[in-house]
Amino acid sequence: MGKVATAEVLRFMTDCLKTVGTNAKAARQTAELLLQADRLGHPSHGLNRFEYYINDIVSGACTPNKEPRVLKETASTAWVDAHSVLGATSSHFAMDLAIKKAKTTGIGWVTVKGANHFGIAGWWAQKAADQGFIGMAFTNTSPLMAPTRSKESALGTNPIAVVAPAAQGETFYLDMATTAVAVGKIEMQRRKGEPLPPGWAQGPDGRETTDADLAYDTACLMPLGGGEMNSGYKGYGLAAMVELFCGISSGSKYGHHIRSWSHSGDGGPADLGHCFVALDPGCFAPGFGDRMNESMQHWRQLKPTDPSLPVLAPGDKERKAAADTDCRGTVTYLQQQLQASAALAERLQVKPMAVEETD
Amino acid sequence: MGKVATAEVLRFMTDCLKTVGTNAKAARQTAELLLQADRLGHPSHGLNRFEYYINDIVSGACTPNKEPRVLKETASTAWVDAHSVLGATSSHFAMDLAIKKAKTTGIGWVTVKGANHFGIAGWWAQKAADQGFIGMAFTNTSPLMAPTRSKESALGTNPIAVVAPAAQGETFYLDMATTAVAVGKIEMQRRKGEPLPPGWAQGPDGRETTDADLAYDTACLMPLGGGEMNSGYKGYGLAAMVELFCGISSGSKYGHHIRSWSHSGDGGPADLGHCFVALDPGCFAPGFGDRMNESMQHWRQLKPTDPSLPVLAPGDKERKAAADTDCRGTVTYLQQQLQASAALAERLQVKPMAVEETD
Repeated sequence: MGKVATAEVLRFMTDCLKTVGTNAKAARQTAELLLQADRLGHPSHGLNRFEYYINDIVSGACTPNKEPRVLKETASTAWVDAHSVLGATSSHFAMDLAIKKAKTTGIGWVTVKGANHFGIAGWWAQKAADQGFIGMAFTNTSPLMAPTRSKESALGTNPIAVVAPAAQGETFYLDMATTAVAVGKIEMQRRKGEPLPPGWAQGPDGRETTDADLAYDTACLMPLGGGEMNSGYKGYGLAAMVELFCGISSGSKYGHHIRSWSHSGDGGPADLGHCFVALDPGCFAPGFGDRMNESMQHWRQLKPTDPSLPVLAPGDKERKAAADTDCRGTVTYLQQQLQASAALAERLQVKPMAVEETD
Repeated sequence: MGKVATAEVLRFMTDCLKTVGTNAKAARQTAELLLQADRLGHPSHGLNRFEYYINDIVSGACTPNKEPRVLKETASTAWVDAHSVLGATSSHFAMDLAIKKAKTTGIGWVTVKGANHFGIAGWWAQKAADQGFIGMAFTNTSPLMAPTRSKESALGTNPIAVVAPAAQGETFYLDMATTAVAVGKIEMQRRKGEPLPPGWAQGPDGRETTDADLAYDTACLMPLGGGEMNSGYKGYGLAAMVELFCGISSGSKYGHHIRSWSHSGDGGPADLGHCFVALDPGCFAPGFGDRMNESMQHWRQLKPTDPSLPVLAPGDKERKAAADTDCRGTVTYLQQQLQASAALAERLQVKPMAVEETD
């Protein structure tokens, strides 16, 4: 483990992106996006993914200096071609458009094709919430989840993010994959040498497995809910709904047509589909923020089953992680991530990330 | 068990509603709504709930002959006061408005306060899909689900429905509660004398229970996902999201403020919150219906884990149930439901429902 100052993480990622030819604005926006995942305690979507982004630029799958373009629009909707720019670039473009429309008609619903990975979905929903709107963001991802009863994967972890501003500085923050768990959690159990709980992943025979190694190798996650008896078909249905909003609406690749993604960057353009929504709560009953805040306080004050584990409101975990990161001013990375970053620095001839403290 | 012709179910429910003073249109729309649940194989939301509707009218909690009213609107949004009319009346009103707005600006997003139970959410999303739109419907419901880590319930079964038209007569149909299972499923295990799978419900101590009797008496469902280890907080987050769209946006009762609902009808006005969305897929990439259809075919053709259990596309179960009902022309009810309907007929002095065949 090693600690790196957040400003240094930003500096390192920005330098690497510029070195492979990315313009300064796109480089900065991408670095901010990835740092945010580490800051909120979702390391899988932070520095951990950075090399994938770099390799997609080097291979030409991602063309960071093109411009996204609106292909079709109405007063409240837009269809955008991302032209394979970095996910941060097209997502700022699309969410800005959604917010602009929401300011006029109360809602903006924007779908994007030809997109690259956009990091954590919550960052984009938060962007709308920062301006007083209910923000939503969705993306399709590479197939990794087996629909209920299926031996094979057919949909991604397809996240749903909804963020809304509440009174007294509170924010409702929901950012969730529609699989039972992320691959990273299986990796964690594997490292610890512990079995998986039932309902996380399938083995090659299509049955639930508690064998972490087998689950990792099979790479076939179960939908939220788990098996059929526990309504896993609802998680499957939600993943399909996200695909409907993203790839099926935008005409990007969708479902089983999406490339698998690895750090080698040789899968061709991602052509992912995104969906961004901004909705003005002022279009409905006055007092939205107060009711939202009152709900969040109520949930936190519910009698906990285990007194040492208080009930959380959606986003509390991320808020705590962000506050801790900001207080320390550093992000803690695994040795393996630090080594990968050092190797990347050498490969790109960029000044390596300064690690403050190692243990 | 007894079979009743679908036309006779409609006749009976319409007669009862008219007898307690409901206008003909509202009576017919409500009967159609409840019959649809029975037709699709979701009996909990069909005739089973009918007496609750009647009792709410008799008690004055539901005022079926008032008119819903638009309180505020923009080109793409509306805020509606249902004035405690029947759920079918205000929901037709609100979804018609959403569709009208979607025809002009691509999307209509309508929230409703002061509403009564609107039956199955899928019926309302389907209404938009029947006109070529992606339809969505959400409702809050009485508290029955315990947020992750909580000993007490704080949110309802808060369903999400998304229905979309696909090519070749196919329809994507998702209508799901955000709890792991509905109360009806616990009742079923209890009748069969079988234990519950883990992850369905809590006992009075706030811990997961497999004791069906205890779970039934506690009436504290777990969110989709189940326990914390299986990401039950995602189901909790989704239920909260539905509440954000419904009660928190519309200014109706929300979360823990919602009355509990029983057939006695003495809980005062329901003042539920609803949310209806119509979105024109024509605003985005051409070929939406083809991609939706191709996805559904692909999912159905995935290799099944158990060859006798083919993979289903969202809505296949409901489609089969509807086709079977239409083929038979009858709905099968439990003896208990038939007795309750006979008693209701006598109480209201309405011609009882003619049961075709009993076994």
